[in-house]
Amino acid sequence: MREVFQTELKEVQTRLIEIAKDSTRVMELASAAFLTSDVTLADQALASADAINEKALSLDESVIRILARQSPVSRDLRILVSALRISASLERMGALAGHIAQIARFRYPGSAVPSVLADTFKEMGELDIRLGNKVVKLLENTDLDLAKEIQAADGRVDELHRKVFDVVLGDDWKENAMFTVDVTLASRYHERFADHVVDISAKVSYLTTGTWNETE
Amino acid sequence: MREVFQTELKEVQTRLIEIAKDSTRVMELASAAFLTSDVTLADQALASADAINEKALSLDESVIRILARQSPVSRDLRILVSALRISASLERMGALAGHIAQIARFRYPGSAVPSVLADTFKEMGELDIRLGNKVVKLLENTDLDLAKEIQAADGRVDELHRKVFDVVLGDDWKENAMFTVDVTLASRYHERFADHVVDISAKVSYLTTGTWNETE
Repeated sequence: MREVFQTELKEVQTRLIEIAKDSTRVMELASAAFLTSDVTLADQALASADAINEKALSLDESVIRILARQSPVSRDLRILVSALRISASLERMGALAGHIAQIARFRYPGSAVPSVLADTFKEMGELDIRLGNKVVKLLENTDLDLAKEIQAADGRVDELHRKVFDVVLGDDWKENAMFTVDVTLASRYHERFADHVVDISAKVSYLTTGTWNETE
Repeated sequence: MREVFQTELKEVQTRLIEIAKDSTRVMELASAAFLTSDVTLADQALASADAINEKALSLDESVIRILARQSPVSRDLRILVSALRISASLERMGALAGHIAQIARFRYPGSAVPSVLADTFKEMGELDIRLGNKVVKLLENTDLDLAKEIQAADGRVDELHRKVFDVVLGDDWKENAMFTVDVTLASRYHERFADHVVDISAKVSYLTTGTWNETE
């Protein structure tokens, strides 16, 4: 029974890693679509985000079946409860990246990013992709130093999020309301993507150390 | 043992209802603060949102302890897993309402809502509050008709959310970028609040009917 359970836990981990890779891939596609107004990439991002939703639902059902069959306690129970939460965060990350792709789609053939903010959004996208890849590594080997790196990268995303508002609310901003709406939402989606990565890393730290690593 | 378990489930339900009432109260305070630029109400909303976060964490820990002690299966297990998800949604609702209060705070003593959108945001706030009250009722007695009413009200929130963009992107919109940013984010927060209510109602339907009531 114990051996079956370990195999099942391993399977849950494998599926979480797969979903984490998928969500990161959606952000790669969405960020490229958003920066280059590429509607084909945007459509690929949206299709992948939908597929993540299905995978996360199916994983959650598996976790509930394992809970029912194995009645785990202590650490094993916490791993499974955390798996449900991590799957919810990964699904949201895919959805948020999908929203970024959606903005690129709406504005096509025009651009959603005014040139003054192109570098900022390029860096935000790169940071989110790097954060997504760190989640994959974190789920693979629960490396706590990685959790600290994640918090640092999230801090930089927050800085860039504030920078977007500084630019938009500055005297030099002459773009129309459509650009203002697009960059406001796109910046928010990038920032929330990073927040979910921080939440996931807090959950993994919790499993390793037994205490919630409260993050801002 | 069974009797203890039923008492514990009842306690979880009571605490979820309390958090649902708190989240609705935060939206009441935040909506009023946002519409009337009342910084005292905004501060109350922000303090209450923080308190919800603590309550939700503490409830989650209780649910995990019950899972460990009672090893529930089938419906009882699903109730507890759903409680974790519902608590996460309620916590987000409190946070989103808090973000609306934050916008009012930032713009004080100015207004965050241009007059052309005052009625729209008033209706959005009222709908969110009504939706929050419906969640309280839903958690109290798992009434499925209420779940349908919730979906209808959410549809209206989505309409208003689109209306905000129609106004902002229309030719008559002459407000500065600050208003554009504020109403874009405030509209998004109102809409996400309603989305979480729909998610919760889908989870409650699932407990009652055994099938996920997929909602758009």
